[in-house]
Amino acid sequence: MPESSAPDRGFRSLLEVEQILTHITWLVTCDWEMRCIPSGAVAIDGQDIVGVGTTNQILSIFRGRETIALPGFMVLPGLVNTHTHAAMSCFRGLGDDLPLGRWLHEVIFPAEAAIVCEEMVYWGTLLSAVEMLKNGITTFCDGYFFEEAAARAALDAGSRAVLGQGILDFPTPDQPDPARNRERAIQFLKQFPSGSGRIRPSLFCHAPYTCGPRTLQWAKALCREHGILLQIHVSETAREVEDLVRTSGETPVFILERLGLMDPWTLCAHCVWVTHEEIEILASRGAGVSHNVESNMKLASGVAPVPRMLEAGIRLGIGTDGCACNNDLDLFSEMDKAAKLHKLIQLDPVVCPAPQMLRMATCGGASITGWEHQTGSIEVGKKADLIAVDLDRPHLTPLYDPISHIVYAVKGSDVRHVWVDGRKVVWNGEMQTIDEERIMAEVQRLVRGRKRSGQRQC
Amino acid sequence: MPESSAPDRGFRSLLEVEQILTHITWLVTCDWEMRCIPSGAVAIDGQDIVGVGTTNQILSIFRGRETIALPGFMVLPGLVNTHTHAAMSCFRGLGDDLPLGRWLHEVIFPAEAAIVCEEMVYWGTLLSAVEMLKNGITTFCDGYFFEEAAARAALDAGSRAVLGQGILDFPTPDQPDPARNRERAIQFLKQFPSGSGRIRPSLFCHAPYTCGPRTLQWAKALCREHGILLQIHVSETAREVEDLVRTSGETPVFILERLGLMDPWTLCAHCVWVTHEEIEILASRGAGVSHNVESNMKLASGVAPVPRMLEAGIRLGIGTDGCACNNDLDLFSEMDKAAKLHKLIQLDPVVCPAPQMLRMATCGGASITGWEHQTGSIEVGKKADLIAVDLDRPHLTPLYDPISHIVYAVKGSDVRHVWVDGRKVVWNGEMQTIDEERIMAEVQRLVRGRKRSGQRQC
Repeated sequence: MPESSAPDRGFRSLLEVEQILTHITWLVTCDWEMRCIPSGAVAIDGQDIVGVGTTNQILSIFRGRETIALPGFMVLPGLVNTHTHAAMSCFRGLGDDLPLGRWLHEVIFPAEAAIVCEEMVYWGTLLSAVEMLKNGITTFCDGYFFEEAAARAALDAGSRAVLGQGILDFPTPDQPDPARNRERAIQFLKQFPSGSGRIRPSLFCHAPYTCGPRTLQWAKALCREHGILLQIHVSETAREVEDLVRTSGETPVFILERLGLMDPWTLCAHCVWVTHEEIEILASRGAGVSHNVESNMKLASGVAPVPRMLEAGIRLGIGTDGCACNNDLDLFSEMDKAAKLHKLIQLDPVVCPAPQMLRMATCGGASITGWEHQTGSIEVGKKADLIAVDLDRPHLTPLYDPISHIVYAVKGSDVRHVWVDGRKVVWNGEMQTIDEERIMAEVQRLVRGRKRSGQRQC
Repeated sequence: MPESSAPDRGFRSLLEVEQILTHITWLVTCDWEMRCIPSGAVAIDGQDIVGVGTTNQILSIFRGRETIALPGFMVLPGLVNTHTHAAMSCFRGLGDDLPLGRWLHEVIFPAEAAIVCEEMVYWGTLLSAVEMLKNGITTFCDGYFFEEAAARAALDAGSRAVLGQGILDFPTPDQPDPARNRERAIQFLKQFPSGSGRIRPSLFCHAPYTCGPRTLQWAKALCREHGILLQIHVSETAREVEDLVRTSGETPVFILERLGLMDPWTLCAHCVWVTHEEIEILASRGAGVSHNVESNMKLASGVAPVPRMLEAGIRLGIGTDGCACNNDLDLFSEMDKAAKLHKLIQLDPVVCPAPQMLRMATCGGASITGWEHQTGSIEVGKKADLIAVDLDRPHLTPLYDPISHIVYAVKGSDVRHVWVDGRKVVWNGEMQTIDEERIMAEVQRLVRGRKRSGQRQC
């Protein structure tokens, strides 16, 4: 036997890491190639993904202080909800099936006037965060009022989030004097809780028809100064576009372009009524677009030209919008509806195939919300935001293609385990971070009070 | 004290019945008035509903050998799936996102040629029946081949079902010689298992473009003779209608009308491409129509004119279609999609309101499948086909309107208990009648065999 055959030859000591997930029936990475790895495994250390591969590959490199075998499971990146108003879960199903004007003026605005306060935003956002986490949404991009409270809720629930303080040129629940909006925004950014790395501030200008040019410009300037996202509703309804053209002579995207607001750190929600030219502007500026299919359907807003936007190379994500117009927060359902709706509208079953929808709900969403390097795919160097889907269910049997299964068959309720930043926030379908019974009770209390008194509650 | 105050004065002995469900947070009856009863209760004796009212009312009349308190639950009638091909669960997600021609000719037809046999139909139908029961669908209306096996599956699972033996003027898996179709149909009807009252036979002529006038006429004559339902696909795609007009000079509904097939015992599936005149014929003849919104979306077939059909007074139900083109069997999801899609298409959020959708998925579906007097609503005299939905969930909090909640927020996975004919078939989300693990294993075995060999398996 030659000298070189020392006892430890060929032996390589294993790297010790915090968690290893092994024997995953399908590991759906959502990486650039949309790789799906059978018998996959992931190594997690602290908050980070440090290894991705087959179970054999990972076990030959890493030793986990905890090893979790997941046969019969599919693991995919946590989903990214690119547009919501989380606190509006308090208004879930309020005034359904009414004409838009009556719904807004007779139901939603009075309800908001009655109960929107810091307490309501905290509990409402917590309720939504719990619903989202249990449905596999690990990151959400929010816009509402009292967003300091929404930030506390996201931290307490264990979500990753972008919290957009709402701005309108009208009195709002947390700023009765619009002249002081900039002051309010500066104070919001200054006091925003830092340190966790899981939450980021943002400004949310409601829309070009509710925020004048000056407001839009100082808001974007503040966003640039702080390196944060500007969110805005764009061309949601035909009516708002017509009105804006009548009053200003321009369509929303052209207004934003002329004011210099269009860049990769502007997230335009809806973009239902956008023209070819506007699509070109959105694409060339690298602005993000959130497609909110269920909300657009329920409010009869119209059909966003998603196939054309994808073709133009627009950066797209999927959003649920708020619970008042949806009425739930489930991206599996949104992916399914988006894939099916656009096939129908184009009368072509090939349009919006499953991989494209899954990409929008994961890495696409991560990109447009500013978390591209942190989440949205299972890759070494990203944060461990993962969800495990239980495949051992009648409605998921048999399985031919994991990605098509995710879009067309998996439900939010099939999600069993959820990690955010490597931390188990949902385990066996149960919240690990907070007491969901208490949250439901608090929301019911707030809402009951409103129903009883019809008066402002806080 | 007057004489008349005998000790039992004012005392009325309680009627003893098998089960009483009490303290139901919302009892959604789906009766004529769509009554929703808070703190509702239902008395069940044997297979039958014998009392419906508030908990106080029911407890003042009945004593249950078993009393089940359901606070925090909504109870509604079991849903009725008016169109499916249950055994096709074996092809769930096979060839998604392909053009229709390639999907049919390169994927589905070869797959059917490889594995459709009595064994596959039995296990595939069982798998679907389990999925449907767990999603709150207690009645389904089926059409496929080897329907004797489907009947056995429905009986074993505990479902209520109409089983339609498939007929085409082409060789089929269970009748290679179309000339002997009538013989096959007569044999099917003769040997159909009788006695349970839960299942009924039917004939399913595939479509006017695959069944000639003679076939349609003998099939309907047989149905009339046996007092059973004739099912048929009608105007699902624009292409099939154009082809038929080119070859026969008539559209599908006109053909069926001329041949004398249109009556309340004919169930037309899809009716996507029907004209005003055809809608009038369907309405005046009292024929039933199954709206299959998810299938029509996914296959890009088109949008059925549901608001116009409802206005014309057509008897409408909702169907899932088969799993190969959906890819699941969930009427909560179908109601939600139908309500939202038609609002969008009409650009009117008032169209297809929640109560109308719920009616279609319950009493409407019961009516067009021939079970009008047995199921589809919670009323005295009907069979006890009930489902209990757990409201104590974040995504169902808060609750403003129970019917809007059912359509827009409840998921199939929220169904906890299911009764068919008064028998508990699902309890706490678990099947009580059959071993679902075995069913999944058998389907996987059948499908794996096909994938491995590419050859006919049975």
